Amino acid sequence: MTKIAVVLSGCGVFDGAEIHESVLTLLAIHRAGASYQCFAPDMDQYHVINHMTGDDMKEKRNVMVEASRISRGDIKPLSDYNPADFDAIILPGGFGAAKNLSTFAFDGPDCSVQADVEKALKATRAADKPIGALCISPAVLAKVFDDITVTIGQDEGVSGAIQAMGCTHESTDHGEIIVDAKTKIVTTPCYMLEANIGQIADGAEACVQEVIKLAQ
Amino acid sequence: MTKIAVVLSGCGVFDGAEIHESVLTLLAIHRAGASYQCFAPDMDQYHVINHMTGDDMKEKRNVMVEASRISRGDIKPLSDYNPADFDAIILPGGFGAAKNLSTFAFDGPDCSVQADVEKALKATRAADKPIGALCISPAVLAKVFDDITVTIGQDEGVSGAIQAMGCTHESTDHGEIIVDAKTKIVTTPCYMLEANIGQIADGAEACVQEVIKLAQ
Repeated sequence: MTKIAVVLSGCGVFDGAEIHESVLTLLAIHRAGASYQCFAPDMDQYHVINHMTGDDMKEKRNVMVEASRISRGDIKPLSDYNPADFDAIILPGGFGAAKNLSTFAFDGPDCSVQADVEKALKATRAADKPIGALCISPAVLAKVFDDITVTIGQDEGVSGAIQAMGCTHESTDHGEIIVDAKTKIVTTPCYMLEANIGQIADGAEACVQEVIKLAQ
Repeated sequence: MTKIAVVLSGCGVFDGAEIHESVLTLLAIHRAGASYQCFAPDMDQYHVINHMTGDDMKEKRNVMVEASRISRGDIKPLSDYNPADFDAIILPGGFGAAKNLSTFAFDGPDCSVQADVEKALKATRAADKPIGALCISPAVLAKVFDDITVTIGQDEGVSGAIQAMGCTHESTDHGEIIVDAKTKIVTTPCYMLEANIGQIADGAEACVQEVIKLAQ
Protein backbone atom coordinates (compact mmCIF):
# COMPACT_ATOMS: atom_id res chain seq x y z
CA MET A 1 0.00 0.00 0.00
CA THR A 2 1.26 3.46 -0.90
CA LYS A 3 2.00 5.44 2.27
CA ILE A 4 1.71 9.21 2.19
CA ALA A 5 2.89 11.72 4.78
CA VAL A 6 0.58 14.75 5.07
CA VAL A 7 2.07 17.92 6.57
CA LEU A 8 -0.46 20.11 8.40
CA SER A 9 0.23 23.67 9.55
CA GLY A 10 -2.45 24.13 12.23
CA CYS A 11 -6.26 24.00 12.02
CA GLY A 12 -8.05 26.78 10.18
CA VAL A 13 -7.48 28.70 6.95
CA PHE A 14 -6.40 32.06 8.41
CA ASP A 15 -3.72 30.86 10.86
CA GLY A 16 -3.21 27.18 10.06
CA ALA A 17 -4.03 24.40 7.61
CA GLU A 18 -7.09 24.97 5.44
CA ILE A 19 -9.54 22.42 6.84
CA HIS A 20 -11.41 21.48 3.64
CA GLU A 21 -8.15 21.00 1.71
CA SER A 22 -6.72 18.91 4.55
CA VAL A 23 -9.76 16.64 5.02
CA LEU A 24 -10.32 16.22 1.28
CA THR A 25 -6.64 15.32 0.79
CA LEU A 26 -7.01 12.60 3.45
CA LEU A 27 -10.24 11.37 1.79
CA ALA A 28 -8.60 11.32 -1.66
CA ILE A 29 -5.65 9.32 -0.29
CA HIS A 30 -7.99 6.81 1.34
CA ARG A 31 -10.21 6.49 -1.74
CA ALA A 32 -7.14 5.94 -3.95
CA GLY A 33 -6.31 2.88 -1.81
CA ALA A 34 -3.34 4.48 -0.08
CA SER A 35 -2.76 5.25 3.61
CA TYR A 36 -1.77 8.46 5.34
CA GLN A 37 0.07 9.68 8.43
CA CYS A 38 -0.24 13.31 9.49
CA PHE A 39 2.76 15.36 10.65
CA ALA A 40 3.18 18.95 11.80
CA PRO A 41 6.02 21.02 13.22
CA ASP A 42 5.96 21.15 17.04
CA MET A 43 6.06 24.94 17.39
CA ASP A 44 3.90 27.90 18.34
CA GLN A 45 1.61 29.26 15.64
CA TYR A 46 2.66 32.69 14.33
CA HIS A 47 -0.65 33.95 15.75
CA VAL A 48 -4.26 32.93 16.44
CA ILE A 49 -6.96 34.51 14.26
CA ASN A 50 -10.66 34.77 15.10
CA HIS A 51 -12.00 33.34 11.83
CA MET A 52 -15.28 35.30 12.12
CA THR A 53 -13.71 38.74 12.54
CA GLY A 54 -10.12 38.39 11.30
CA ASP A 55 -8.84 39.77 14.61
CA ASP A 56 -5.65 38.56 16.29
CA MET A 57 -6.88 36.77 19.44
CA LYS A 58 -3.64 37.36 21.40
CA GLU A 59 -3.47 33.68 22.35
CA LYS A 60 -0.74 31.09 21.98
CA ARG A 61 -1.51 27.77 20.26
CA ASN A 62 0.82 24.99 19.10
CA VAL A 63 0.78 24.09 15.40
CA MET A 64 0.98 20.33 15.98
CA VAL A 65 -1.58 20.27 18.82
CA GLU A 66 -4.12 22.25 16.78
CA ALA A 67 -3.42 20.22 13.62
CA SER A 68 -4.22 17.05 15.59
CA ARG A 69 -7.85 18.21 15.63
CA ILE A 70 -7.94 17.48 11.89
CA SER A 71 -6.32 14.05 12.33
CA ARG A 72 -8.42 13.03 15.36
CA GLY A 73 -5.35 12.97 17.62
CA ASP A 74 -3.09 10.83 15.42
CA ILE A 75 -0.18 13.08 14.45
CA LYS A 76 3.61 13.07 14.74
CA PRO A 77 6.16 15.86 15.01
CA LEU A 78 7.55 16.65 11.59
CA SER A 79 11.07 16.23 13.03
CA ASP A 80 10.28 12.49 13.20
CA TYR A 81 9.52 12.25 9.47
CA ASN A 82 11.80 9.90 7.53
CA PRO A 83 11.19 9.60 3.78
CA ALA A 84 12.36 5.97 3.93
CA ASP A 85 9.06 5.19 5.71
CA PHE A 86 6.84 6.86 3.07
CA ASP A 87 6.26 6.88 -0.68
CA ALA A 88 5.36 10.57 -0.97
CA ILE A 89 4.62 13.73 1.00
CA ILE A 90 1.75 16.21 0.52
CA LEU A 91 1.23 19.73 1.93
CA PRO A 92 -2.37 21.03 1.99
CA GLY A 93 -2.70 24.82 2.00
CA GLY A 94 -4.05 27.55 4.26
CA PHE A 95 -2.23 30.59 5.64
CA GLY A 96 -0.45 28.22 8.03
CA ALA A 97 1.83 27.26 5.14
CA ALA A 98 2.75 30.93 4.69
CA LYS A 99 2.83 31.90 8.39
CA ASN A 100 3.99 28.77 10.27
CA LEU A 101 5.71 26.49 7.73
CA SER A 102 7.39 29.55 6.24
CA THR A 103 7.37 33.35 6.50
CA PHE A 104 6.08 33.77 2.93
CA ALA A 105 3.00 35.76 4.06
CA PHE A 106 5.27 38.41 5.53
CA ASP A 107 8.50 38.24 3.53
CA GLY A 108 7.40 37.03 0.07
CA PRO A 109 10.37 35.83 -2.01
CA ASP A 110 12.75 36.71 0.85
CA CYS A 111 10.95 34.31 3.21
CA SER A 112 12.55 31.61 5.33
CA VAL A 113 11.22 28.06 5.59
CA GLN A 114 10.80 26.37 8.99
CA ALA A 115 13.76 24.01 9.58
CA ASP A 116 11.78 20.73 9.92
CA VAL A 117 9.79 21.57 6.77
CA GLU A 118 12.90 22.34 4.72
CA LYS A 119 14.62 19.18 5.94
CA ALA A 120 11.57 16.99 5.19
CA LEU A 121 11.15 18.40 1.70
CA LYS A 122 14.84 18.15 0.80
CA ALA A 123 15.09 14.59 2.13
CA THR A 124 12.00 13.54 0.16
CA ARG A 125 13.46 15.06 -3.01
CA ALA A 126 16.85 13.43 -2.33
CA ALA A 127 15.04 10.08 -2.13
CA ASP A 128 13.44 10.87 -5.53
CA LYS A 129 9.92 10.58 -4.06
CA PRO A 130 6.98 12.76 -5.14
CA ILE A 131 5.87 15.92 -3.35
CA GLY A 132 2.35 17.33 -3.64
CA ALA A 133 1.30 20.84 -2.62
CA LEU A 134 -2.08 22.61 -2.62
CA CYS A 135 -3.14 26.26 -2.57
CA ILE A 136 -0.34 28.52 -1.25
CA SER A 137 2.00 25.63 -0.26
CA PRO A 138 3.73 25.58 -3.69
CA ALA A 139 5.33 28.91 -2.66
CA VAL A 140 7.12 27.01 0.15
CA LEU A 141 8.45 24.50 -2.40
CA ALA A 142 9.57 27.37 -4.66
CA LYS A 143 11.72 28.71 -1.81
CA VAL A 144 13.26 25.31 -0.99
CA PHE A 145 13.93 24.07 -4.55
CA ASP A 146 15.58 25.74 -7.52
CA ASP A 147 14.02 26.06 -10.92
CA ILE A 148 10.83 24.07 -10.38
CA THR A 149 7.53 24.68 -12.17
CA VAL A 150 4.45 25.04 -9.97
CA THR A 151 0.98 26.57 -9.87
CA ILE A 152 -0.93 28.56 -7.28
CA GLY A 153 -3.74 29.38 -9.72
CA GLN A 154 -3.83 32.89 -11.16
CA ASP A 155 -2.79 35.35 -8.42
CA GLU A 156 -0.27 37.73 -9.96
CA GLY A 157 1.39 38.77 -6.71
CA VAL A 158 2.12 35.22 -5.58
CA SER A 159 3.07 33.97 -9.04
CA GLY A 160 5.44 36.94 -9.34
CA ALA A 161 7.03 36.04 -6.00
CA ILE A 162 7.45 32.44 -7.18
CA GLN A 163 9.25 33.72 -10.28
CA ALA A 164 11.39 35.99 -8.09
CA MET A 165 12.50 32.86 -6.23
CA GLY A 166 13.87 31.48 -9.52
CA CYS A 167 10.97 29.19 -10.35
CA THR A 168 8.34 29.04 -13.08
CA HIS A 169 4.64 29.59 -12.50
CA GLU A 170 1.92 28.19 -14.76
CA SER A 171 -1.65 29.47 -14.43
CA THR A 172 -4.36 26.91 -13.74
CA ASP A 173 -8.10 26.75 -13.17
CA HIS A 174 -10.18 24.67 -10.71
CA GLY A 175 -9.13 21.05 -10.30
CA GLU A 176 -6.11 21.36 -12.59
CA ILE A 177 -2.60 20.27 -11.62
CA ILE A 178 0.90 21.13 -12.79
CA VAL A 179 3.46 18.32 -12.77
CA ASP A 180 7.16 19.12 -12.64
CA ALA A 181 8.29 15.81 -14.09
CA LYS A 182 12.01 16.06 -13.26
CA THR A 183 11.38 16.63 -9.54
CA LYS A 184 8.02 14.77 -9.23
CA ILE A 185 6.41 17.90 -7.75
CA VAL A 186 2.62 18.14 -8.23
CA THR A 187 0.73 21.37 -7.43
CA THR A 188 -2.89 22.54 -7.63
CA PRO A 189 -4.55 25.90 -6.76
CA CYS A 190 -7.56 24.97 -4.56
CA TYR A 191 -8.64 28.00 -2.46
CA MET A 192 -6.02 30.25 -4.09
CA LEU A 193 -8.86 30.53 -6.62
CA GLU A 194 -12.35 31.66 -5.59
CA ALA A 195 -13.64 28.11 -5.20
CA ASN A 196 -16.43 26.00 -3.77
CA ILE A 197 -15.89 22.88 -1.69
CA GLY A 198 -16.56 20.57 -4.66
CA GLN A 199 -13.75 22.21 -6.62
CA ILE A 200 -11.44 21.68 -3.63
CA ALA A 201 -12.30 17.97 -3.64
CA ASP A 202 -11.57 17.85 -7.39
CA GLY A 203 -8.17 19.53 -6.95
CA ALA A 204 -7.17 17.36 -3.99
CA GLU A 205 -8.17 14.20 -5.89
CA ALA A 206 -6.23 15.22 -9.01
CA CYS A 207 -3.11 16.06 -6.98
CA VAL A 208 -3.26 12.91 -4.84
CA GLN A 209 -3.84 10.61 -7.82
CA GLU A 210 -0.87 12.05 -9.72
CA VAL A 211 1.36 11.86 -6.63
CA ILE A 212 0.43 8.19 -6.18
CA LYS A 213 1.08 7.50 -9.87
CA LEU A 214 4.54 9.08 -9.63
CA ALA A 215 5.27 7.09 -6.44
CA GLN A 216 4.95 3.75 -8.26
CA MET B 1 -32.01 25.26 -4.72
CA THR B 2 -32.44 23.31 -1.49
CA LYS B 3 -30.96 25.28 1.42
CA ILE B 4 -29.62 23.40 4.41
CA ALA B 5 -28.61 24.78 7.80
CA VAL B 6 -25.64 22.93 9.33
CA VAL B 7 -25.21 23.18 13.11
CA LEU B 8 -21.59 22.95 14.27
CA SER B 9 -20.54 22.48 17.90
CA GLY B 10 -16.92 23.69 17.80
CA CYS B 11 -13.89 22.43 15.85
CA GLY B 12 -12.42 19.06 16.81
CA VAL B 13 -13.83 15.67 17.75
CA PHE B 14 -13.03 15.69 21.47
CA ASP B 15 -14.46 19.09 22.43
CA GLY B 16 -16.37 20.26 19.36
CA ALA B 17 -17.69 19.23 15.95
CA GLU B 18 -16.01 16.22 14.37
CA ILE B 19 -14.11 17.82 11.49
CA HIS B 20 -14.35 15.00 8.92
CA GLU B 21 -18.10 14.60 9.49
CA SER B 22 -18.59 18.37 9.23
CA VAL B 23 -16.55 18.87 6.05
CA LEU B 24 -17.96 15.77 4.36
CA THR B 25 -21.51 16.90 5.19
CA LEU B 26 -20.78 20.24 3.51
CA LEU B 27 -19.25 18.44 0.51
CA ALA B 28 -22.24 16.08 0.24
CA ILE B 29 -24.66 19.05 0.34
CA HIS B 30 -22.72 20.84 -2.40
CA ARG B 31 -22.42 17.74 -4.58
CA ALA B 32 -26.17 17.08 -4.24
CA GLY B 33 -26.79 20.50 -5.80
CA ALA B 34 -27.95 22.12 -2.55
CA SER B 35 -26.47 25.03 -0.59
CA TYR B 36 -25.49 25.33 3.07
CA GLN B 37 -25.19 27.91 5.83
CA CYS B 38 -23.34 27.03 9.02
CA PHE B 39 -24.64 27.97 12.45
CA ALA B 40 -23.37 27.42 15.99
CA PRO B 41 -24.42 28.52 19.45
CA ASP B 42 -22.55 31.64 20.62
CA MET B 43 -21.32 30.22 23.95
CA ASP B 44 -18.17 29.01 25.66
CA GLN B 45 -17.13 25.43 24.96
CA TYR B 46 -17.57 23.09 27.92
CA HIS B 47 -13.78 22.69 27.84
CA VAL B 48 -10.77 22.64 25.50
CA ILE B 49 -9.08 19.29 24.92
CA ASN B 50 -5.54 18.73 23.65
CA HIS B 51 -6.39 16.24 20.89
CA MET B 52 -2.95 14.59 21.07
CA THR B 53 -3.00 13.84 24.79
CA GLY B 54 -6.66 14.06 25.83
CA ASP B 55 -5.74 16.58 28.54
CA ASP B 56 -7.96 19.50 29.50
CA MET B 57 -5.99 22.58 28.35
CA LYS B 58 -7.60 24.92 30.90
CA GLU B 59 -8.42 27.47 28.20
CA LYS B 60 -11.65 29.18 27.19
CA ARG B 61 -12.82 29.03 23.59
CA ASN B 62 -16.15 30.04 22.02
CA VAL B 63 -18.13 27.34 20.18
CA MET B 64 -19.17 29.62 17.29
CA VAL B 65 -15.74 31.24 16.87
CA GLU B 66 -13.99 27.85 16.74
CA ALA B 67 -16.67 26.36 14.47
CA SER B 68 -16.05 29.21 12.02
CA ARG B 69 -12.66 27.59 11.29
CA ILE B 70 -14.57 24.78 9.57
CA SER B 71 -16.75 27.21 7.59
CA ARG B 72 -13.89 29.58 6.61
CA GLY B 73 -15.37 32.41 8.66
CA ASP B 74 -18.94 32.24 7.30
CA ILE B 75 -21.11 31.29 10.26
CA LYS B 76 -24.13 32.70 12.11
CA PRO B 77 -25.26 32.42 15.73
CA LEU B 78 -27.79 29.62 16.05
CA SER B 79 -30.15 32.08 17.77
CA ASP B 80 -30.56 33.72 14.32
CA TYR B 81 -31.75 30.47 12.69
CA ASN B 82 -35.27 30.61 11.25
CA PRO B 83 -36.62 27.44 9.64
CA ALA B 84 -38.61 29.58 7.19
CA ASP B 85 -35.28 30.41 5.50
CA PHE B 86 -34.16 26.77 5.09
CA ASP B 87 -35.45 23.46 3.77
CA ALA B 88 -33.71 21.26 6.35
CA ILE B 89 -31.20 21.23 9.21
CA ILE B 90 -28.30 18.82 9.80
CA LEU B 91 -26.14 18.22 12.90
CA PRO B 92 -22.73 16.59 12.31
CA GLY B 93 -21.29 14.75 15.32
CA GLY B 94 -18.30 14.99 17.61
CA PHE B 95 -18.23 15.31 21.40
CA GLY B 96 -19.31 18.94 20.95
CA ALA B 97 -22.86 17.66 20.39
CA ALA B 98 -22.70 15.88 23.76
CA LYS B 99 -20.71 18.55 25.66
CA ASN B 100 -21.76 21.90 24.12
CA LEU B 101 -25.08 21.35 22.31
CA SER B 102 -26.23 19.21 25.23
CA THR B 103 -24.93 17.69 28.46
CA PHE B 104 -25.40 14.11 27.19
CA ALA B 105 -21.71 13.23 27.71
CA PHE B 106 -22.09 13.91 31.43
CA ASP B 107 -25.76 13.30 32.23
CA GLY B 108 -26.85 10.65 29.72
CA PRO B 109 -30.65 10.36 29.51
CA ASP B 110 -31.01 13.07 32.19
CA CYS B 111 -29.16 15.60 30.01
CA SER B 112 -30.31 19.07 29.12
CA VAL B 113 -30.17 20.52 25.61
CA GLN B 114 -28.76 24.01 24.98
CA ALA B 115 -31.63 26.49 24.54
CA ASP B 116 -30.84 27.67 20.98
CA VAL B 117 -30.41 24.05 19.86
CA GLU B 118 -33.71 22.93 21.37
CA LYS B 119 -35.53 25.91 19.89
CA ALA B 120 -34.02 25.36 16.40
CA LEU B 121 -34.88 21.68 16.39
CA LYS B 122 -38.45 22.15 17.64
CA ALA B 123 -39.09 24.98 15.16
CA THR B 124 -37.78 22.87 12.27
CA ARG B 125 -40.00 19.99 13.32
CA ALA B 126 -43.01 22.30 13.74
CA ALA B 127 -42.43 23.45 10.15
CA ASP B 128 -42.44 19.77 9.08
CA LYS B 129 -38.95 20.06 7.61
CA PRO B 130 -36.34 17.27 7.74
CA ILE B 131 -33.62 16.97 10.37
CA GLY B 132 -30.40 15.01 9.81
CA ALA B 133 -28.00 13.94 12.56
CA LEU B 134 -24.66 12.11 12.44
CA CYS B 135 -22.64 10.16 15.01
CA ILE B 136 -23.66 11.09 18.60
CA SER B 137 -26.01 13.94 17.56
CA PRO B 138 -29.06 11.62 17.34
CA ALA B 139 -28.89 11.45 21.17
CA VAL B 140 -29.63 15.20 21.24
CA LEU B 141 -32.70 14.62 19.04
CA ALA B 142 -33.82 11.77 21.30
CA LYS B 143 -33.86 14.19 24.25
CA VAL B 144 -35.79 16.90 22.35
CA PHE B 145 -38.38 14.70 20.62
CA ASP B 146 -40.64 11.96 21.94
CA ASP B 147 -40.83 8.48 20.50
CA ILE B 148 -38.54 8.89 17.49
CA THR B 149 -36.47 6.10 15.94
CA VAL B 150 -32.77 6.85 15.43
CA THR B 151 -29.39 5.17 15.09
CA ILE B 152 -25.97 5.84 16.59
CA GLY B 153 -24.52 2.58 15.28
CA GLN B 154 -24.06 -0.26 17.76
CA ASP B 155 -22.89 1.22 21.08
CA GLU B 156 -24.97 -0.38 23.83
CA GLY B 157 -24.50 2.36 26.40
CA VAL B 158 -25.65 5.14 24.10
CA SER B 159 -28.45 3.11 22.51
CA GLY B 160 -29.65 2.23 26.02
CA ALA B 161 -29.69 5.91 26.96
CA ILE B 162 -31.70 6.70 23.82
CA GLN B 163 -34.24 4.07 24.84
CA ALA B 164 -34.29 5.50 28.38
CA MET B 165 -35.30 8.84 26.80
CA GLY B 166 -38.38 7.13 25.37
CA CYS B 167 -37.08 6.61 21.84
CA THR B 168 -36.24 3.58 19.69
CA HIS B 169 -32.71 2.69 18.59
CA GLU B 170 -31.95 0.62 15.50
CA SER B 171 -28.45 -0.78 14.98
CA THR B 172 -26.65 0.15 11.78
CA ASP B 173 -23.35 -0.45 10.03
CA HIS B 174 -21.11 1.93 8.03
CA GLY B 175 -22.90 4.25 5.63
CA GLU B 176 -26.37 3.12 6.64
CA ILE B 177 -29.15 5.50 7.66
CA ILE B 178 -32.33 5.18 9.68
CA VAL B 179 -35.30 7.26 8.54
CA ASP B 180 -38.07 8.12 10.99
CA ALA B 181 -40.69 8.78 8.32
CA LYS B 182 -43.31 10.46 10.53
CA THR B 183 -40.87 13.15 11.75
CA LYS B 184 -38.51 13.24 8.72
CA ILE B 185 -35.55 12.55 11.00
CA VAL B 186 -32.54 10.88 9.30
CA THR B 187 -29.62 9.50 11.34
CA THR B 188 -26.34 7.70 10.57
CA PRO B 189 -23.55 6.38 12.84
CA CYS B 190 -20.31 7.75 11.27
CA TYR B 191 -17.50 7.78 13.90
CA MET B 192 -19.75 6.16 16.55
CA LEU B 193 -18.49 3.06 14.74
CA GLU B 194 -14.76 2.35 14.33
CA ALA B 195 -14.59 3.90 10.87
CA ASN B 196 -12.26 5.22 8.21
CA ILE B 197 -12.70 8.55 6.45
CA GLY B 198 -14.22 6.93 3.36
CA GLN B 199 -16.97 5.40 5.49
CA ILE B 200 -17.66 8.85 6.98
CA ALA B 201 -18.07 10.26 3.47
CA ASP B 202 -20.48 7.42 2.65
CA GLY B 203 -22.57 8.05 5.78
CA ALA B 204 -22.68 11.81 5.28
CA GLU B 205 -23.70 11.36 1.63
CA ALA B 206 -26.46 8.89 2.49
CA CYS B 207 -27.84 11.14 5.25
CA VAL B 208 -27.68 14.33 3.16
CA GLN B 209 -29.28 12.71 0.11
CA GLU B 210 -32.20 11.36 2.16
CA VAL B 211 -32.66 14.71 3.93
CA ILE B 212 -32.80 16.50 0.56
CA LYS B 213 -35.27 13.92 -0.77
CA LEU B 214 -37.54 14.44 2.24
CA ALA B 215 -37.25 18.24 1.83
CA GLN B 216 -38.88 18.17 -1.63
